[in-house]
Amino acid sequence: MPPRKISDSAVRRLSLYARALADYQDAGRSTVSSVDLAERGGMTPAQVRKDLSLFGSFGKRGLGYATGDLKRHIEEILGLDRSWRVALVGAGRLGAALFQYDGFRRQGFEIVAVFDVDPEKIGRVWGEVTIEDVDELEQVVRREKAMMGIVTTPAASAQEAAEALVEGGVEGILNFAPRKLSVPERVTLRNVNLTIELESLTFALTHHDVEIT
Amino acid sequence: MPPRKISDSAVRRLSLYARALADYQDAGRSTVSSVDLAERGGMTPAQVRKDLSLFGSFGKRGLGYATGDLKRHIEEILGLDRSWRVALVGAGRLGAALFQYDGFRRQGFEIVAVFDVDPEKIGRVWGEVTIEDVDELEQVVRREKAMMGIVTTPAASAQEAAEALVEGGVEGILNFAPRKLSVPERVTLRNVNLTIELESLTFALTHHDVEIT
Repeated sequence: MPPRKISDSAVRRLSLYARALADYQDAGRSTVSSVDLAERGGMTPAQVRKDLSLFGSFGKRGLGYATGDLKRHIEEILGLDRSWRVALVGAGRLGAALFQYDGFRRQGFEIVAVFDVDPEKIGRVWGEVTIEDVDELEQVVRREKAMMGIVTTPAASAQEAAEALVEGGVEGILNFAPRKLSVPERVTLRNVNLTIELESLTFALTHHDVEIT
Repeated sequence: MPPRKISDSAVRRLSLYARALADYQDAGRSTVSSVDLAERGGMTPAQVRKDLSLFGSFGKRGLGYATGDLKRHIEEILGLDRSWRVALVGAGRLGAALFQYDGFRRQGFEIVAVFDVDPEKIGRVWGEVTIEDVDELEQVVRREKAMMGIVTTPAASAQEAAEALVEGGVEGILNFAPRKLSVPERVTLRNVNLTIELESLTFALTHHDVEIT
């Protein structure tokens, strides 16, 4: 069981540990140490041990952790021992890329509905999903029992998309649109903004003399 | 001119303002107020005025900001008034998606070299770029004068890719690989991890009783 309070960065470190453990497993390593995991994630071994101890007692002093067991346990904590039904809003290039992105599928994310506003796109078939009109979003999301939404619309339509997703019953939204969304407190929101990341790079490269804190 | 110190979040807000201004410009709005910009970005109008005042004096009390002028000025501050030569390491699905992603191209990011380790991919042509062997990375990056690198390799090869990019002369790296990279202090590093973002969502959805701080 997880503790009652946890920092978002501890959750993110768990993701890194899970990925590292998968790689160690692929490489045939039956045990790993906190030093191994720390090296991969760029944190200290003490941090690794502290993070893992939040969720119970793993590993034996001097013997390290059993790779497969720890991986399964962390995946369970992260909710990755099940599949997640995802609705994708926005069937542009970024939406198409995410739809095809293997990494999502491997982690159990299944895109069960795709929406767009463009009449030319509505009705097209992607894999086993037919692109539907964004006007139908709320009811389709409810019908498909999607628990999560991914928003890749232009900024101007993103808030509306988020609201329809929430009305349809999703509990978590991953937002790629370049604007801040407001959602009810019970809904978890994460933002990824590729151009903002790149622009934060170009700013740094343009102003070598400015200290970015 | 920017100040000598600035927070990364202020830089990110500038990106949001630039995007909002582009939309207002497309919509034919010749002036915008700090209230308009605040609404789009989810911050207060006072925050908008404070951010913009860091870079000089814009706008007139009661008249707002001239949309096009402010947009151009912010783009200049962000280094978006020029094009950026980018090297992409990893020609998998995510790499392909980013290569095709319009958003990058529109902002002046030009992918001038693509690398992979897979003999079946090396030699293939994407647009005007031929995929090259990752063994050639350093010299090709130098030849192509790429200033920035995007890493989409598996975790295990990412650090090596980053080091070759740095040796080849890039000054900024956008890392999509699920591991922490270490780069010299003069090189700016930004991390985007799509599965970590999704896993931070699934954790929250799995543990409704846990407060994430």
